[in-house]
Amino acid sequence: MENPEPERPPIGLTIAGSDSGGGAGIQTDLATMAAHDVYGTSVLTAVTAQHTRGVESTHVLPLEEVQAQLEAVLSDFAVDAAKTGMLATTEIVRLVADRAPDFPFPLVVDPVMVATSGDRLLEPEAERAYEDLIGEATVVTPNADEAEVLTGEPVEDGASAREAGRRLCEMGADAALIKGGHVPGETVRDVLVTDGDVRVFEHPRVDTDATHGSGCTLAAAIASRLARGSDLPSAVAGGTDFLARAISHPYDVGNGPGAVNHGVSPPEVDH
Amino acid sequence: MENPEPERPPIGLTIAGSDSGGGAGIQTDLATMAAHDVYGTSVLTAVTAQHTRGVESTHVLPLEEVQAQLEAVLSDFAVDAAKTGMLATTEIVRLVADRAPDFPFPLVVDPVMVATSGDRLLEPEAERAYEDLIGEATVVTPNADEAEVLTGEPVEDGASAREAGRRLCEMGADAALIKGGHVPGETVRDVLVTDGDVRVFEHPRVDTDATHGSGCTLAAAIASRLARGSDLPSAVAGGTDFLARAISHPYDVGNGPGAVNHGVSPPEVDH
Repeated sequence: MENPEPERPPIGLTIAGSDSGGGAGIQTDLATMAAHDVYGTSVLTAVTAQHTRGVESTHVLPLEEVQAQLEAVLSDFAVDAAKTGMLATTEIVRLVADRAPDFPFPLVVDPVMVATSGDRLLEPEAERAYEDLIGEATVVTPNADEAEVLTGEPVEDGASAREAGRRLCEMGADAALIKGGHVPGETVRDVLVTDGDVRVFEHPRVDTDATHGSGCTLAAAIASRLARGSDLPSAVAGGTDFLARAISHPYDVGNGPGAVNHGVSPPEVDH
Repeated sequence: MENPEPERPPIGLTIAGSDSGGGAGIQTDLATMAAHDVYGTSVLTAVTAQHTRGVESTHVLPLEEVQAQLEAVLSDFAVDAAKTGMLATTEIVRLVADRAPDFPFPLVVDPVMVATSGDRLLEPEAERAYEDLIGEATVVTPNADEAEVLTGEPVEDGASAREAGRRLCEMGADAALIKGGHVPGETVRDVLVTDGDVRVFEHPRVDTDATHGSGCTLAAAIASRLARGSDLPSAVAGGTDFLARAISHPYDVGNGPGAVNHGVSPPEVDH
């Protein structure tokens, strides 16, 4: 047969942990990218032994192996957008923060503020590293708890979400999406704050405990849409719609709570 | 919103390495499972820093972390089929071979006979471990080179492929699929040998160097179809068709040879 015409898809990169159970981490990120017809590359920070009931064990990769993966991807692939998830240790946050100023593509930072030990990354060095990384973000996507850790601002309503977003922009992020999933109410309101603009994205709350992987899925969906050329508000609108659908069609796998369904067809992407 | 009706997909398991470039390893396996609407779980054996031009670095996971992932998955998920890929070290081959007799599901063994060092696993201990693993296989899927290492039989044509397959069945595999991709000719002939039966699956050879990930993709496609309830000949027929389509629509990503497109729609699955 003739040499086939190859496909040149947009290319995404995830920097995150591995979830053996497939519900979160790079597994969810890559599935979300694939659902958006984005080719996925990945830099693993840690390998977890995990299932629907929890994390049994975590192996953080040596810093030089994380760096080797990052350089292997960046030296060969024309990455169109990246996202970060669980960076596992302060030194890995620092590695990515130091490399990010050279990224010629949009960066979505999902500020997972929980160390693999289960402890929050609260020591001053970790916070400083995260602040530097957020300063390089096209958009940072904290939930209410993470936003409070990063800004000192408790997020309980729209006004405090806007204030937290404003402070994250002051740290240097181009934009902050303060997620409303952890704020009580029948309607989930995700608040996108940029320099001088605020937009609210609303979805009915789904009554389910099968939300494992929702943070990864949203950040990966936004990165996928940025990789395809969407502007940020469109990428966030499409990403939050994608997540709402993924939560509405969960996987019932394992004995614990299920996972969001990152394999659902995405709403149409602007391109 | 009401508690949504969850989806209960078939569940697949891959035991293999991570490819940061996304063209092979668990990344390809999970994408292939997703293309077959099979929920993927994964046990990582090693993390590679890799792109389309080669492998820059490899980090083999500690044996106990491989075991922890395997137990995390098996203790929580009702796995419907599994496949093995790069098992990286003799001790990991031994771990899986020792656990496999308890697997209540079909097992596809892709006998990747190259250690992460680049050396073949030729020492007697590694060969013995692989023979034990093959003895537990529903089907073992060597290419010509791997079949020769395992059986001592050079595979150069249909007759020698059948003989190699017969010897693998004598080792205890229920079936052996001797892949023809490395055997010259305009037509690729994959030979499936079971106890007392031989079937040949033919596809036109595609003139391309973008075959990275083809072995992973085929084994994962066969496992996906077994997970969906196909019998072995149907799973192999559908899996080889899936790979032929994936090779015909390669990804042009990175500066080296491209990868097979594991995101293509699969031919219809019997279920």
